[in-house]
Amino acid sequence: MSKSPEARHILHSGYFHPALRKLQTPNVEISPHNLMFPIFVGNNEKPIEVKSMPGIVQYGVSNIEECLKPIVNKGLKSILLFAVEYGIPKDERGSYADSPRNPVIQVLPKLRRCFPDIIIACDVCLCPYTNHGHCGIISKDGVINNEASIERIAQVAVAYAKSGAHIVAPSDMMDGRIGAIKKCLIDAGLGNRVSVLSYAAKFASGFYGPFRDVTKSAPLFSDRKCYQLPPGSKGLATRAALRDVTEGCDMLMVKPGLSYLDIVKQTKDTHPEYPLFVYQVSGEYAMLYHAAKAGAIDLRGVLEEILLSMRRAGADCIITYFTPVILDWLQIRSKY
Amino acid sequence: MSKSPEARHILHSGYFHPALRKLQTPNVEISPHNLMFPIFVGNNEKPIEVKSMPGIVQYGVSNIEECLKPIVNKGLKSILLFAVEYGIPKDERGSYADSPRNPVIQVLPKLRRCFPDIIIACDVCLCPYTNHGHCGIISKDGVINNEASIERIAQVAVAYAKSGAHIVAPSDMMDGRIGAIKKCLIDAGLGNRVSVLSYAAKFASGFYGPFRDVTKSAPLFSDRKCYQLPPGSKGLATRAALRDVTEGCDMLMVKPGLSYLDIVKQTKDTHPEYPLFVYQVSGEYAMLYHAAKAGAIDLRGVLEEILLSMRRAGADCIITYFTPVILDWLQIRSKY
Amino acid sequence: MSKSPEARHILHSGYFHPALRKLQTPNVEISPHNLMFPIFVGNNEKPIEVKSMPGIVQYGVSNIEECLKPIVNKGLKSILLFAVEYGIPKDERGSYADSPRNPVIQVLPKLRRCFPDIIIACDVCLCPYTNHGHCGIISKDGVINNEASIERIAQVAVAYAKSGAHIVAPSDMMDGRIGAIKKCLIDAGLGNRVSVLSYAAKFASGFYGPFRDVTKSAPLFSDRKCYQLPPGSKGLATRAALRDVTEGCDMLMVKPGLSYLDIVKQTKDTHPEYPLFVYQVSGEYAMLYHAAKAGAIDLRGVLEEILLSMRRAGADCIITYFTPVILDWLQIRSKY
Amino acid sequence: MSKSPEARHILHSGYFHPALRKLQTPNVEISPHNLMFPIFVGNNEKPIEVKSMPGIVQYGVSNIEECLKPIVNKGLKSILLFAVEYGIPKDERGSYADSPRNPVIQVLPKLRRCFPDIIIACDVCLCPYTNHGHCGIISKDGVINNEASIERIAQVAVAYAKSGAHIVAPSDMMDGRIGAIKKCLIDAGLGNRVSVLSYAAKFASGFYGPFRDVTKSAPLFSDRKCYQLPPGSKGLATRAALRDVTEGCDMLMVKPGLSYLDIVKQTKDTHPEYPLFVYQVSGEYAMLYHAAKAGAIDLRGVLEEILLSMRRAGADCIITYFTPVILDWLQIRSKY
Amino acid sequence: MSKSPEARHILHSGYFHPALRKLQTPNVEISPHNLMFPIFVGNNEKPIEVKSMPGIVQYGVSNIEECLKPIVNKGLKSILLFAVEYGIPKDERGSYADSPRNPVIQVLPKLRRCFPDIIIACDVCLCPYTNHGHCGIISKDGVINNEASIERIAQVAVAYAKSGAHIVAPSDMMDGRIGAIKKCLIDAGLGNRVSVLSYAAKFASGFYGPFRDVTKSAPLFSDRKCYQLPPGSKGLATRAALRDVTEGCDMLMVKPGLSYLDIVKQTKDTHPEYPLFVYQVSGEYAMLYHAAKAGAIDLRGVLEEILLSMRRAGADCIITYFTPVILDWLQIRSKY
Amino acid sequence: MSKSPEARHILHSGYFHPALRKLQTPNVEISPHNLMFPIFVGNNEKPIEVKSMPGIVQYGVSNIEECLKPIVNKGLKSILLFAVEYGIPKDERGSYADSPRNPVIQVLPKLRRCFPDIIIACDVCLCPYTNHGHCGIISKDGVINNEASIERIAQVAVAYAKSGAHIVAPSDMMDGRIGAIKKCLIDAGLGNRVSVLSYAAKFASGFYGPFRDVTKSAPLFSDRKCYQLPPGSKGLATRAALRDVTEGCDMLMVKPGLSYLDIVKQTKDTHPEYPLFVYQVSGEYAMLYHAAKAGAIDLRGVLEEILLSMRRAGADCIITYFTPVILDWLQIRSKY
Ligand SMILES: [Zn+2]
Ligand SMILES: [Zn+2]
Ligand SMILES: [Zn+2]
Ligand SMILES: [Zn+2]
Ligand SMILES: [Zn+2]
Ligand SMILES: [Zn+2]
Repeated sequence: MSKSPEARHILHSGYFHPALRKLQTPNVEISPHNLMFPIFVGNNEKPIEVKSMPGIVQYGVSNIEECLKPIVNKGLKSILLFAVEYGIPKDERGSYADSPRNPVIQVLPKLRRCFPDIIIACDVCLCPYTNHGHCGIISKDGVINNEASIERIAQVAVAYAKSGAHIVAPSDMMDGRIGAIKKCLIDAGLGNRVSVLSYAAKFASGFYGPFRDVTKSAPLFSDRKCYQLPPGSKGLATRAALRDVTEGCDMLMVKPGLSYLDIVKQTKDTHPEYPLFVYQVSGEYAMLYHAAKAGAIDLRGVLEEILLSMRRAGADCIITYFTPVILDWLQIRSKY
Repeated sequence: MSKSPEARHILHSGYFHPALRKLQTPNVEISPHNLMFPIFVGNNEKPIEVKSMPGIVQYGVSNIEECLKPIVNKGLKSILLFAVEYGIPKDERGSYADSPRNPVIQVLPKLRRCFPDIIIACDVCLCPYTNHGHCGIISKDGVINNEASIERIAQVAVAYAKSGAHIVAPSDMMDGRIGAIKKCLIDAGLGNRVSVLSYAAKFASGFYGPFRDVTKSAPLFSDRKCYQLPPGSKGLATRAALRDVTEGCDMLMVKPGLSYLDIVKQTKDTHPEYPLFVYQVSGEYAMLYHAAKAGAIDLRGVLEEILLSMRRAGADCIITYFTPVILDWLQIRSKY
Repeated sequence: MSKSPEARHILHSGYFHPALRKLQTPNVEISPHNLMFPIFVGNNEKPIEVKSMPGIVQYGVSNIEECLKPIVNKGLKSILLFAVEYGIPKDERGSYADSPRNPVIQVLPKLRRCFPDIIIACDVCLCPYTNHGHCGIISKDGVINNEASIERIAQVAVAYAKSGAHIVAPSDMMDGRIGAIKKCLIDAGLGNRVSVLSYAAKFASGFYGPFRDVTKSAPLFSDRKCYQLPPGSKGLATRAALRDVTEGCDMLMVKPGLSYLDIVKQTKDTHPEYPLFVYQVSGEYAMLYHAAKAGAIDLRGVLEEILLSMRRAGADCIITYFTPVILDWLQIRSKY
Repeated sequence: MSKSPEARHILHSGYFHPALRKLQTPNVEISPHNLMFPIFVGNNEKPIEVKSMPGIVQYGVSNIEECLKPIVNKGLKSILLFAVEYGIPKDERGSYADSPRNPVIQVLPKLRRCFPDIIIACDVCLCPYTNHGHCGIISKDGVINNEASIERIAQVAVAYAKSGAHIVAPSDMMDGRIGAIKKCLIDAGLGNRVSVLSYAAKFASGFYGPFRDVTKSAPLFSDRKCYQLPPGSKGLATRAALRDVTEGCDMLMVKPGLSYLDIVKQTKDTHPEYPLFVYQVSGEYAMLYHAAKAGAIDLRGVLEEILLSMRRAGADCIITYFTPVILDWLQIRSKY
Repeated sequence: MSKSPEARHILHSGYFHPALRKLQTPNVEISPHNLMFPIFVGNNEKPIEVKSMPGIVQYGVSNIEECLKPIVNKGLKSILLFAVEYGIPKDERGSYADSPRNPVIQVLPKLRRCFPDIIIACDVCLCPYTNHGHCGIISKDGVINNEASIERIAQVAVAYAKSGAHIVAPSDMMDGRIGAIKKCLIDAGLGNRVSVLSYAAKFASGFYGPFRDVTKSAPLFSDRKCYQLPPGSKGLATRAALRDVTEGCDMLMVKPGLSYLDIVKQTKDTHPEYPLFVYQVSGEYAMLYHAAKAGAIDLRGVLEEILLSMRRAGADCIITYFTPVILDWLQIRSKY
Repeated sequence: MSKSPEARHILHSGYFHPALRKLQTPNVEISPHNLMFPIFVGNNEKPIEVKSMPGIVQYGVSNIEECLKPIVNKGLKSILLFAVEYGIPKDERGSYADSPRNPVIQVLPKLRRCFPDIIIACDVCLCPYTNHGHCGIISKDGVINNEASIERIAQVAVAYAKSGAHIVAPSDMMDGRIGAIKKCLIDAGLGNRVSVLSYAAKFASGFYGPFRDVTKSAPLFSDRKCYQLPPGSKGLATRAALRDVTEGCDMLMVKPGLSYLDIVKQTKDTHPEYPLFVYQVSGEYAMLYHAAKAGAIDLRGVLEEILLSMRRAGADCIITYFTPVILDWLQIRSKY
């Protein structure tokens, strides 16, 4: 063997020019339709800054229109709604979740009217409304009553769907909730015009801290490790995605994003025919924010690298709090 | 279908108890042999704190023994050496890389003698020693001269091997360097007792900032995008790993780690028979450090989640600046 | 071709050092959670040594707490319970299996209270309780009545689950028992908090001799070859695992272990998302014990080699009578 | 779902009769050509019993004909020769390995003449003849000199081939010895009438004890872990088999057998077109012998179960010290 | 490249000796359990020679015991029964198929009693009993009524099972008959002790001539091309095997044998876990008989080559009229 | 489950009509270019009937033109030439094979001139010309001298190529002959206009009897089992095809055809990019001829079934002595 490598071992010839590098990185672009913006909405009269997530604002039913309009003008294509309201009555079964006074239910018709081209997804869960803070209904012996839980969750999902949600996205991780929701949507005559986006592979992660501060949704006792997946388990993630596909979901989600890109790849490789969402969660947001502020990283460079990494791993749509700033950048077209 | 999900759709029954969750997360434990500690060594008489990486220290040839001893006692199994020295003579071909005065060459025999059970890897590159700061030799027209580069890199690798390195780890990303190094090691009679750890999938990432501050290895002109891989290209990463396997490498590496876990999975799935290293780089270190300091994340919880995610994705060994603190934790045995 | 082999044909360079050999053997470590301890429990007031299995003890309901405490302190994580009681009333349907006087049913609440962190599995079978000694219910013409058998086995499984078992493990090898058990657990409201560990690939082996001496469970007439699998049949093992997965089991088992490592590999490769148990049975235990005593092998060296072979083949958890002695060794950390 | 399982979940109907069980276990029969008998041969005038392996005899050049004749009459098809001689001159390069006085070289022409239908394989290694006891030639610095080793091993292999061996079987585990032996056989005009059986996946096992007592082949210093494979490494076993196939071997071997059946399966699945040998080594022999003697197992039942397990895993030929007794059993035809 | 081929291109070294050739042809041996003997049985008082198949005899209920005894003594392991009776009443639904006067139903209890170790399979079809000669029930418009057909065929299968058949083998090729038969067997309490052997890939072949002469089963009008598979269609053969596996069959068959060895391979590769039968049909028998008689081939040499070809292609059991003569040969042990 | 099978289990709907059956059997048509006609040519003045193959004629150099013309007019596209001449001088190296007096060498220019559209292949072997009757050159010790053999065979192949053969087809089964022939063709400037059709998988079959009677090519001593493949060995067939592809052949062949259809499928599946030939040999021809004559089969129906089976298994071109009669049938277009 001479000093010169074998021809097929020469890779530089394939990426020495920016245009070649672009060719070598197919399907990783970020366009507005690859982004979904998670939004906190309450009954607050004025927008409120979220303390644990610098730069993020909680909208109110009365001000959301004017707040969102500039972002929509930048190209916003889809949003994911979370209700945030303090001092509400909580009970065993989370009755407030589908109460007519729930801000999500109030805001849905308005958003549909104001922004007819925006896709609106609603997170579906009981934890902000139950007096114990768990995502399902609890039996007397203190564990999840799965059947009662999915029956209740399906009621809530249908309520949001009736109020105008295009997508209902159950984040509770109860077994069988996709099938139950689908059945109820069909019974309600909404089977063919509401999508179900399954939080199929949602892990019991340490990256949820800031979000829980916002939504006050931490459980009173115990934790969520009996329904959110163990972080090391690619096996359960495989089974959960297959289950939700079998039960009829329309889209799949992996959450959190950054440290689960192998699960993103595994899920996309196994179910290439389903749109795959990745949730860049509150802890990821805050981590990048603070690291950039301390000078450890350049926010734009690193965030763009992470977004394309998510796309490379198989994500079709990224749910991210950075959506407005990315839409800004997109207008100047970044060059990788 | 009744309310109750199909039996095989019930996943909770497989992870409702901590011991069950442990069973569902096989092969993601961190033991000392899953960690490699990257070390900066110079001729400084006293250890020097590294500014851009709080908590990290640059050792000197004269003090490395006493500095490492407590970490070895905690279970340290392997290290990765980088020379850091300021004010050295630089030239076109990086002559100082294998000079007898190079701190790595000086420290190797000492480390072999003091710590006979530690595996010692040496990063092999020209960039700290060339006057232009690139990782290879530059032609008159300003581009990489690949043949001259791999000939020179192989010389340096052999020099480190002769001085006592168990593993030589070329990080330069020139084409064909694995074959060239292997050939020279064989000619030197070291073919069967020095391993080559290939930086096979090293991306042109934004996470290298703090490291470059330490080693002063940023190139004077242009950048490294003609030899480090484009972040979005899983195709080139596939080809690079296959090439290095074909040329005879003993182990593979993916670098950086966190936002490349899909590449880690892809590489392990394709080459399950090769030990796979993942480099948690300086920017990842600094990002976690500052995010924890700002309260956005809990360092231990999140770092453990990331380490097990790397293992889940397929990493056999993680190269991390957090090694000493993880060894501390291991002695108290964390519970995921 | 010169005398020197091709570079990629040199393997020595990848394992010439103990730390390298460790890297080349990923995911084969034994930690406490990789071990499950099978326990015989009766109504005996004092622990009784098991004759056919030197070193193994049969605990009693009244003494199990003090007997297990030291093993729990060494790190014991999970146990598998077998009732052993002589002189009990036996009948056609094995009524004593779920009698309140059955030692397993008596001991379960106590174990849950004393050792809240231990996972408790219960073997489920009829053979110790039927007057004919078969694992199912027998028709008038002397063959297995499969439907009656799985109905009865499901009753027993639910009884153990209600008494506190985390895992029920049917060893009877009747067709369809996993589906029947799952259905009954769901009906009993235990669907999401009791796991079913399927003895999916249990072979009609010659390694069960010593166990049958303990439990007096050999059948009166005929043998178990009509329901335990023929040892040479990888085809039936494939079908049995797929069946049990389809019927909703949470974990799979291969039994015996040593001479079925190809079946372990086949099962793990086909169902990587299911935790895989391997049962090192009584005959394997006794064989190793006596061979070591006769000086043919070194017990620790060979047992460690076998355990890592089981892990290499794909086992997540090994059910072994050697658990206490391995926990001892783990505290001194063996080096392979 | 009714009580009765789904039709395809009923497996009993496929194996309720002995003839059906036979059909379910295809291609696992043992015939004489599936057995190879390892034979120790020295210059002893009378056969000597081997102490560490009760029932095994060391033949002498002068008595081997009369000793083997009854076994040949029972159907013996192939043998594997090992020379055993005490008090011979040993040196750096194992000169005695191919000396005209070596008992293997002396006995080959005789065996070819007496038993023309028997296939004769010769183990090829240096360890019984080197004064340091290693399987290759040692450099001054105490490590294997791979190039010198494979040159010498090839000389020995050709010497055995010229003396009449049909198969040469290098057990040394040096890198590149298959290619070197093949080249020398071709140069000697024997390329198309001598087979090379590669000990491709030979592990550094604890099951070799009794054999080393016979052949006095334990190394003086260090061990063989730098060339025999680490027991946990399926990756290196994969690479070793592929390497030996690429270098031109005619058959492959896995050694030891019992606790490596997953490696047997992996090797056969990857290289179905190569005859696969499995070596049931001395420690396996002694373990079964002593366990049976102590009453822990029934020798015939368990040995037959192990042999069919080896065949089920993919073995075409089993090298076993039990060959004569199995040939006895074959004449009465066992029924599994 | 020199004149001498690359080492791995030398194949002769792997098969220059008869014992090596045996090793290169693993798992193709013929033992008695690899053979099933198809038997014609009627009410004839004496055995009758079958004209179109020289050497083949039609037994009678009263003489079958003495006729079969010598073949059983030679090692016969399994038989496949066909009723042949002339002058019986035929009708639309083939009522005579399960009449108590049908010779198969009469002979079954006798055979079970006389030859308890023989496995007895019964061909299940309507064509010998319908007045139109088709294998199913015909609608008024002259085409197959599939639902009525499989209901009737399942009745017949259960009748044979109740009379003592171990295996029922539907040859009719109606869609869904396996599921229908399985369901009826389960309802009859025979689900786990009667096997269903599916004629899964039965082609509309020209090799059935002599058989139809025996059984007088040619259809009166039209042909069987609407239910037997088109000879060129590997796609339909793939789907038929998968269907029958899904419906719960215990074994699969390909018919005819010789010119469908690619289908045999395809079926075994896809369903390795199911015993595979190949039917060497009457035309193959007669062709070999006459070609040998004319001196074109040597019967024994060519028949043995064909049998091993069937085994090589994947057959576990060969249904052949040559069974008695092969059993003779087996006693002298042929050498390929 | 109702009586009616699942929709996807209904296959009849896909083939109830002749046009549908045609659709279900793609790529199995026989057109003239799928047939190659093997031709015996000598120096006989008149055509001579071949005794052992009724209906087959041996042509002479002087009469071949008029004999072939009618077959060419029916559509003949390709032929395979074998020389047959009695009383020629034979020697050690088969000198007559490429003598200017060899009828193949004489007839080639004539055929090229007379039938410019016909593809002409020449069988290349030494056995008709050596005094020992083997296909290669024999060493003094009576075994094949492989290097001398392939050197000689390559000379003969070049001689035929220079005389006008489009394809040279070595049937000798020496190791490495494809590489040797290719090298010599390239050296002779014919590398890009002569194809090499490798008899890659030629088995030592019992179907060659009639051919040997024609060509008088049976060996004087021993047999061809050391170079023709053992009939049961799919492994060696795999390796032989891969070897010949690696050495540069243009097309592959399997021989004989009928009982090797699984090998045809295996070869085509592995090398789909190489045209695959199947040789329906003399024994197959004679067997079909005599079986038809005796009334056991209908020649046309069965032969068409066999031809489409060969095509279904993967054959692109069938070498058959029935070529002229099939060309006749093709003109009337058979309907399957
Ligand atoms: Zn929730
Ligand atoms: Zn560099
Ligand atoms: Zn039992
Ligand atoms: Zn050795
Ligand atoms: Zn029919
Ligand atoms: Zn020839």
